[in-house]
Formats: sequence, structure tokens, C-alpha cells
Amino acid sequence: MKNAVVGIDIGGTNSAIGLVDKTGTILAETTIQTIGYPKVELFIQDLDLAITHLLNNIKQPLQLKGIGIGAPNANYYKGTIENAPNLPWKGILPFKDIFHAHRSLPISLTNDANAAAVGELIFGGAKGMKDFILLTLGTGLGSGIVVNGEVVYGHTGFAGEMGHMVIMPGGRECGCGKRGCLETYVSATGICRSAFELLMQRKTQSILRQYAYKDLSSRIISDAAQNGDALALEAFNITAEYLALAIVNALAFTSPEAIFLFGGLTGAGKLLMEPTQRFLDQYVQVFYKGSFELLFSSLEENNAAILGASALAWKEME
Amino acid sequence: MKNAVVGIDIGGTNSAIGLVDKTGTILAETTIQTIGYPKVELFIQDLDLAITHLLNNIKQPLQLKGIGIGAPNANYYKGTIENAPNLPWKGILPFKDIFHAHRSLPISLTNDANAAAVGELIFGGAKGMKDFILLTLGTGLGSGIVVNGEVVYGHTGFAGEMGHMVIMPGGRECGCGKRGCLETYVSATGICRSAFELLMQRKTQSILRQYAYKDLSSRIISDAAQNGDALALEAFNITAEYLALAIVNALAFTSPEAIFLFGGLTGAGKLLMEPTQRFLDQYVQVFYKGSFELLFSSLEENNAAILGASALAWKEME
Repeated sequence: MKNAVVGIDIGGTNSAIGLVDKTGTILAETTIQTIGYPKVELFIQDLDLAITHLLNNIKQPLQLKGIGIGAPNANYYKGTIENAPNLPWKGILPFKDIFHAHRSLPISLTNDANAAAVGELIFGGAKGMKDFILLTLGTGLGSGIVVNGEVVYGHTGFAGEMGHMVIMPGGRECGCGKRGCLETYVSATGICRSAFELLMQRKTQSILRQYAYKDLSSRIISDAAQNGDALALEAFNITAEYLALAIVNALAFTSPEAIFLFGGLTGAGKLLMEPTQRFLDQYVQVFYKGSFELLFSSLEENNAAILGASALAWKEME
Repeated sequence: MKNAVVGIDIGGTNSAIGLVDKTGTILAETTIQTIGYPKVELFIQDLDLAITHLLNNIKQPLQLKGIGIGAPNANYYKGTIENAPNLPWKGILPFKDIFHAHRSLPISLTNDANAAAVGELIFGGAKGMKDFILLTLGTGLGSGIVVNGEVVYGHTGFAGEMGHMVIMPGGRECGCGKRGCLETYVSATGICRSAFELLMQRKTQSILRQYAYKDLSSRIISDAAQNGDALALEAFNITAEYLALAIVNALAFTSPEAIFLFGGLTGAGKLLMEPTQRFLDQYVQVFYKGSFELLFSSLEENNAAILGASALAWKEME
């Protein structure tokens, strides 16, 4: 019988469930809603039913070896989800313990960015690497830090929150209540804020002058930059400069051999990569020069969440 | 026969050598000059002679189990000292290999701050901790980062250079050739630079107004602050604020359970500690609140270098 694991990605609206083999092939997958369950116990019950349905409808019989879960505010040590602002259930949820009542398999939980890093390590471009960092550039900025082949969870289980590194003391207000956090500069919302700063600072003509703040998106800025809009290009430069500084700081902490970029903002491709490389050439200290690569994640965006979660399950079995 | 290791601290002017037992007792110690040797081979020959003399002059017979060495720009993986600006010998020195020709014992090399971190782990306040960081606040700022009970060396062997984290983009010029590095703010020289910034910015009377830049020291600022000099106290506040921001960033990377402060500037005691705690209360994100302690190193300054180096040797035997 073929071995497989379950990879589950819990999102604010929907959750994805997949059966994944050791090579990273998704054998079957489905989605259930995350919202609409007054209690997390009922949601987990339906998650478990969805796994049973996947198993029943697949042709080849599978031997399930474990379950890996990526979820916001997940604590790897405790198997809990703690005070997640984007999930319907408040407080500290003993997610793993509740799930165990349904299925007596090894279950591991971590946050989305850590799961993505494990996905990169097991199935992606970080195969064989010992020290690397993955940055997810979405609405915010998440990170997974791998040292000696292991994700760094730290004393709390909440290590690897590079989005809340202070990159500019006294800088932009962050959703966390502090100022100058990296994700207020380097993320889809960060680049919109940079564009608005430029709209105020510069006299340059720009198509971005017709957008209200609430209507602007990183996609609009990216399209404008593709069309040569000087102000949009400068917004990418600002993002790239702070990203390069964050990478310089990451080198000073864990000296990784690669930094992987993942998530929505990486759709901008070389609009983001080229200026970041240029700022890295300018800012990297001599003792780290040439010691690392800046790469895009090799996982497909639409598979990455399930692959990351399932990679966690496979890795726990090592 | 009692087991012991050799701990060696290589400094720019002198090098200290000690025989250390498993409990961290220094059984015998001596010093030789680092300068005056045209070739590193001759220096290592004398280092080895010094060990023989120590062994000959000690009453109890000892079984040597290994040698640990703390040295500037030491590469743990390769056992080399690479382009150390403060040592007389240039280029990449195969220190461990040369030493092995004299003594066939396990030999480990790392930089001073990493050695201090291992000293704290094996003999000091970090006993039993898995995740902590040690900062050495001297002329510059060094750091040793411990994750899962192991020093982080990274892909290059040069991880843990928090002194070169960019804490203020575009800020003060650093010896490394870049700008805004942490050690330009948080170190003995950093606080002198902050005092000079204040002397220029403020109209406040201060005893510091009588010192030329070349004559000012962190000790003078510390003494002035003890005597209530308002400007000197503000210089400590600036240092404390950047130190707090660096700790916030460290939490976001590895979420340690303790940060240990070590080195000359910590002689200022609560002049440094109290404002740093205050800024931490202000800057630490809610998910790390109460998760860590800020502590002074528990190793005595004059023993710490030998203890750190010997701890490295003991740790390698684990």
C-alpha cells in the first residue's frame, strides 16, 4: 500500500485538504469553508470527514502516516492556534488535541510561512540545504527560518516573525501596534503605502494619481511599472531597498545560503528582483558577499499551501 | 586522573591560556604575547609550549581532552582565522591544522562572542537553556546566537554578527564600510558618538563638553551619568533605545528565552539596564511579551574569555 500524508492549509475563509505522497505529488484534494462553524470542534469534525471522503474516492489504497497543518498563529510546540485575528474562533484552541479525538495519527501544526519553508526544504528549491530563509510577501510579510536543517521555533514557538523586525525606527504604523515593522514596507500593502508616499513627495505624472487609497493594489502598481510609470517603478525601488536591508539583517543573524521569496508580490518578477539585487550589492557586508542566493520559491503558488503542510508531516517522520 | 581542557583566548596584544575542569574551575592559567611573531606558526609553537609549562607546574596530573580557542574572525567549520584586522598575520590562517601538528587533541575554534555564549551555556546563567543570545558590548558589538542548544554558525560559519545588523538605514558610518550598523549605536564607541550628537543638538550644560572626541570614553560618560549629568544620562537612553530595538528584532528572528549582556559597557549596570527595560516595555510585540529575560552575563569579565574557549572544548565532547 502506498504511503501518504494529509496536508491541510487553514485560511480565513476556506481551508484546503490534500493527500500527498513522499515525492510531493498531490493525489487528491478538496476544500471546505472555514467560516460558518460556531465551534472549532465542528469545523475539525468536517475536516476529518473531508479526509475520509478523499480516501474513499481515490482508486489506489493509501496508508496515512500523518497530518500536517499550516494555520495562522499556530504554535508548533503546543499544537494550538492562539488568538488568530483572521479565524472565527477566539482564544487558545487545542487544535491538535481535538483532532486526535478523530484520528490517531501524528499531527503537526505550524504557521503558514513555516509550512511554506518546510515545503521548500522537502519538495522545492531548498532540497539539501541546511540554512535558508523563506519570506512570504502577501498582505503582510511572513517568514520561515531554517537553521541546521530545522525550522527555528524558538522558546515561544513563535520565532521567525521577520515581518515585525523594526527596519525603520519610528517609521510606519503597523497592525501589531508598533512602528517601522518590515511588513509596513515590504508586502502588498507596504508597496501601496510607498506609492502614496511618492504621490505626496513627487511632482511626477503617474497613472496611480487616479486611485483612492482603498482601491490601490500591488497589482495595479505592478501593471503601471510594467508600462514604464516612473512613480510605480520608484515604489518598487523603495520596497526593494527595505527588502535588501532585511536580507542584510538576516545574514547577520543566521547567515543562510539562500533567501526564497514567495507570495503575491513576487508575481512582479524582475520588477522586484532586479532592484533588490542592486541594493544587495550596495548593502551586503564583505564577509557575506557571494555567500548566498536570492531566489523565487520553486513551489507553484496554488499547490504550495498543501505541499508545505504535507511536507511538515513528512519531515516529522524523519 | 582528572580530566581537563585547554581554553585559549587570542587577543590583538596578548593571548590567555587556561586549564579548565568540567565544573568551570580554572586550574592554572598564563598569558603570552600575540604580537612579535612574524609567522603564526611560531606563535602557535609558543602557545603549545605554554600549555606544556602549565601541565608541568600543576600538582595534580591532568588528562587533556581537547582545546577550545576563541579568536577574532575564527571560522568554526574550517578551523581558520580569516583576514582578522586586529591580528598581526594576514590572509586565511589554517590555525587548527597548524596546532594539530603539535598536539593531537580535538581542537575547536570560534569567535570571541560565540565562545562567550558557549561559556554562558556550559558554566553560566544559560545552563539548561535551549534558545538564548549573548551580546558583547565592547569597542564593537559581538553576538552569539544559540538555537536548540547549539551555536548558530550558518552557511558561512560567520552567523551571529548582530553588530552589523542595520538598525538605522542611512545612519552612522561603520568600520565595515556600511551605514547604520547596530554597533555604531550600541557599544563603547557608539555611546561616545551619541554623546557627541547630543553635545551638538542640546544646549544642556555637561561635563562632557570639556572632552575632545579622541579623549572621550564610555567610562567617562558612565561616571558623568552616575553624578547626574543630564546629557550623559541621555546618551545612555539613546544606547538603550537602539539596544531595545535590536532585542525586538532578535525576538522576531529566534525568539530566545534570554538575552545576556556582556563586556565593558555593562559595567554601567542599571544606567544601561533600566532604560533598556523601559524601551523594551514600549517596543516588544504582544506575542513576545513576558517570553524572555534581559540579564547580565553571570561570568566574571576577567575569567570569561578562558571559560568561554574551554566551554567550547567541553561542548564538542558532548
